[in-house]
Amino acid sequence: MHKNFMQLLEDKKYQQLKDLLINMEPADIAVHFSELSERHRAIMFRLLPKESAAEVFVELEPDMQEALIIGFSDNELKEIVDELYVDDAVDIIEEMPANVVSRILRHADTEMRRDINQMLRYPPDSAGSIMTTEYVNLRKDMTVEDAFTHIRRKGTDKETIYTCYVTDNNRILEGLVTVKDLLLNDYACTLEEIMETNVIYVNTTDDQEYAAQLFEKYDFIAIPVVDKEKRLVGIITVDDAIDVITEEATEDIEKMAAIIPSDKPYLRTGVLEIFRQRIPWLLLMMLSATFTQNIISHYESAFLAYGILTSFIPMLMGTGGNSGSQSSVTIIRSLSLGDITFRDTLKVMFKELRVAILCGVTLGIVNFAKLAFIDRAGIDISIIVSSALVGTVLFAKLVGCSLPMLAKKLHLDPAVMASPFITTIVDAISLVIYFDIATRILNI
Amino acid sequence: MHKNFMQLLEDKKYQQLKDLLINMEPADIAVHFSELSERHRAIMFRLLPKESAAEVFVELEPDMQEALIIGFSDNELKEIVDELYVDDAVDIIEEMPANVVSRILRHADTEMRRDINQMLRYPPDSAGSIMTTEYVNLRKDMTVEDAFTHIRRKGTDKETIYTCYVTDNNRILEGLVTVKDLLLNDYACTLEEIMETNVIYVNTTDDQEYAAQLFEKYDFIAIPVVDKEKRLVGIITVDDAIDVITEEATEDIEKMAAIIPSDKPYLRTGVLEIFRQRIPWLLLMMLSATFTQNIISHYESAFLAYGILTSFIPMLMGTGGNSGSQSSVTIIRSLSLGDITFRDTLKVMFKELRVAILCGVTLGIVNFAKLAFIDRAGIDISIIVSSALVGTVLFAKLVGCSLPMLAKKLHLDPAVMASPFITTIVDAISLVIYFDIATRILNI
Repeated sequence: MHKNFMQLLEDKKYQQLKDLLINMEPADIAVHFSELSERHRAIMFRLLPKESAAEVFVELEPDMQEALIIGFSDNELKEIVDELYVDDAVDIIEEMPANVVSRILRHADTEMRRDINQMLRYPPDSAGSIMTTEYVNLRKDMTVEDAFTHIRRKGTDKETIYTCYVTDNNRILEGLVTVKDLLLNDYACTLEEIMETNVIYVNTTDDQEYAAQLFEKYDFIAIPVVDKEKRLVGIITVDDAIDVITEEATEDIEKMAAIIPSDKPYLRTGVLEIFRQRIPWLLLMMLSATFTQNIISHYESAFLAYGILTSFIPMLMGTGGNSGSQSSVTIIRSLSLGDITFRDTLKVMFKELRVAILCGVTLGIVNFAKLAFIDRAGIDISIIVSSALVGTVLFAKLVGCSLPMLAKKLHLDPAVMASPFITTIVDAISLVIYFDIATRILNI
Repeated sequence: MHKNFMQLLEDKKYQQLKDLLINMEPADIAVHFSELSERHRAIMFRLLPKESAAEVFVELEPDMQEALIIGFSDNELKEIVDELYVDDAVDIIEEMPANVVSRILRHADTEMRRDINQMLRYPPDSAGSIMTTEYVNLRKDMTVEDAFTHIRRKGTDKETIYTCYVTDNNRILEGLVTVKDLLLNDYACTLEEIMETNVIYVNTTDDQEYAAQLFEKYDFIAIPVVDKEKRLVGIITVDDAIDVITEEATEDIEKMAAIIPSDKPYLRTGVLEIFRQRIPWLLLMMLSATFTQNIISHYESAFLAYGILTSFIPMLMGTGGNSGSQSSVTIIRSLSLGDITFRDTLKVMFKELRVAILCGVTLGIVNFAKLAFIDRAGIDISIIVSSALVGTVLFAKLVGCSLPMLAKKLHLDPAVMASPFITTIVDAISLVIYFDIATRILNI
């Protein structure tokens, strides 16, 4: 068979070769590749059926892959890269030299590239995992005219040309120039004269949310990503920052609603997958209701003697839950946006305490008026329910603001602290407050 | 006094004038302005104490304001504009011709400009209210070289120069060219040859959220805003789109947590303001708990006979609330992101129904096992509680997904439909299901 291939290639009997290849397993074809010359390999690869080309490619040895990639036209490479599985792409990339890697990444679509980056070496949700390596790289001794020439020559493939980065021979980031700077300065100026040297950058390991916050704050259209030695390794462009902002907001919203976050749009998420996102917290919260169950059982004599007490449980727990989640959601969002940090804890708690007093007293008064004058529930019952309400609101708001802050301090995700935990705690405490007041006042 | 001013101006006794002006009320000074020549007005305005200059300016007649603005240097104008209140600025702007308006807007900072635009003529949260008028406007018969000359001359003040818009003599939007296009084409090309004519734009009255979604979808750095006649009136830049995305997410989150949204960061919001954001929904939800209160009272005999029934109320209502908010929050977010529309209602409901069955049955089985074998609550009680749980989850998820869709259809804000309404409905229904099953099975 081997002889056969060589011979057919030498004789340029390509149609015959094609017919032969179409029925072979990719792994089998790959074996024969190793025995061909580089030139013959390139020819034979192009004779492969489109569907199996990528599969064959994955099976080849790294040095053959590299040689093929170098020989590929952009279209050919793109066709292969589009067909690759991410993990395969990562395997290939890990064996390639930097220039081949960046050529591969350039021909991957955004999603693929992100996945490749993510799997490659950067932690998920790190700046490194969302960066692109397609930026314009300039030297400080270039003139504005040189820079334009460079951009005209190399700019086509870059994700943005509007912010260009100046690095030294060791790829250390030295400054940036925007095309606006270039346009508004004289052709003879050197970049050193006009470049911004006070560059804001992120590290590959920084959180992508931090990078996105820089875009919000400074209105950048791109931000450079450097490694530990401050060598420029990529850039994050504003469109990727927007994706991060949207994703992170969705993630926070999902977590606050006791859903395990997913990246997929709703209609493309399967029923089983949605089930798996939702059932863990539902189960956990259902089982944690054992607390409230036990508390009610413990005070059974109270509500057996005063049946009406039971009817206020939903209102008390509901108001407690709502009060708590108002606080927790506000604090979680403010933490996400960087509006507050752990250092503001006391300030936040003091503010929430005052808000809680205002809300609690207002609700208490309205509730008392309603119970005593509209529902005619009796003064003692009205006092019990209303004072329990005030206590519940106070407690709920303090728990609601302090748990997310605590989570932040412990490097946990504040968003998870929203409803689930807080509701369970607030539910339990509000019942204890309620029944405690009731048993005292009613002397049960 | 009038004579006095004229005389002092004629004699160039500026220090004396300054001392005089410092103690006068702005409105009084303004009166004298009307009696001065244009040249004298300009001089006297510059003699005003910095703090009162803007106040005096507001008091002047529109024609005097216009003449002064035209005479101002950029710095002088900026100083005034910075000092103006937005409503005053709007009053002034409404009287000015277009070129003066755009000069004023150019010297307002982003926030101010947005506020001015908003108050001017566009509905709040419309594309018109967040646009800027500082864009590069080109003609299709210009060559690439002409375009660069134009950008070099006019580009300094523009919010972005990277996307330039081509309009005809009636300012009708004809196309766009990016600086990248310009850089990668020959100097002699006309814009007509290279411009993109299939331009995606928004109308001034489109929702800002829609505009932001276009940025997410197409990775633009700017988008043109046109009026009803397709005349270009402004652009929205990506940094403003990011602000919109962040704000809208925060707004959705706040609404879902039963908070009336505010634009201000937490630490800069006063206690009373936070109270006002939170108390209306708390009151409404507290009072709507009258339903659950009545339902429980109605079934009083049931839980007086079987005290243990009461202890499961928190678990049932909690699980119902959590199940419902999982669905509503998912649907609300998907609507916000444009992932689903009203047309998907049936698809969504069918999906939620299947998820609800999976969740309900899982929770029901786990709950039954816990009650029957761990809590030893008795088979009848275990059956009652577990089947009520399944019914509650089913119902909660269907209400949770359909209410936001309905809100969307009725052009209400789906986010408001999250917890508040849904919780009240789900709470009530879950109790009815529970007690109905209980009275049937226990023959109360």
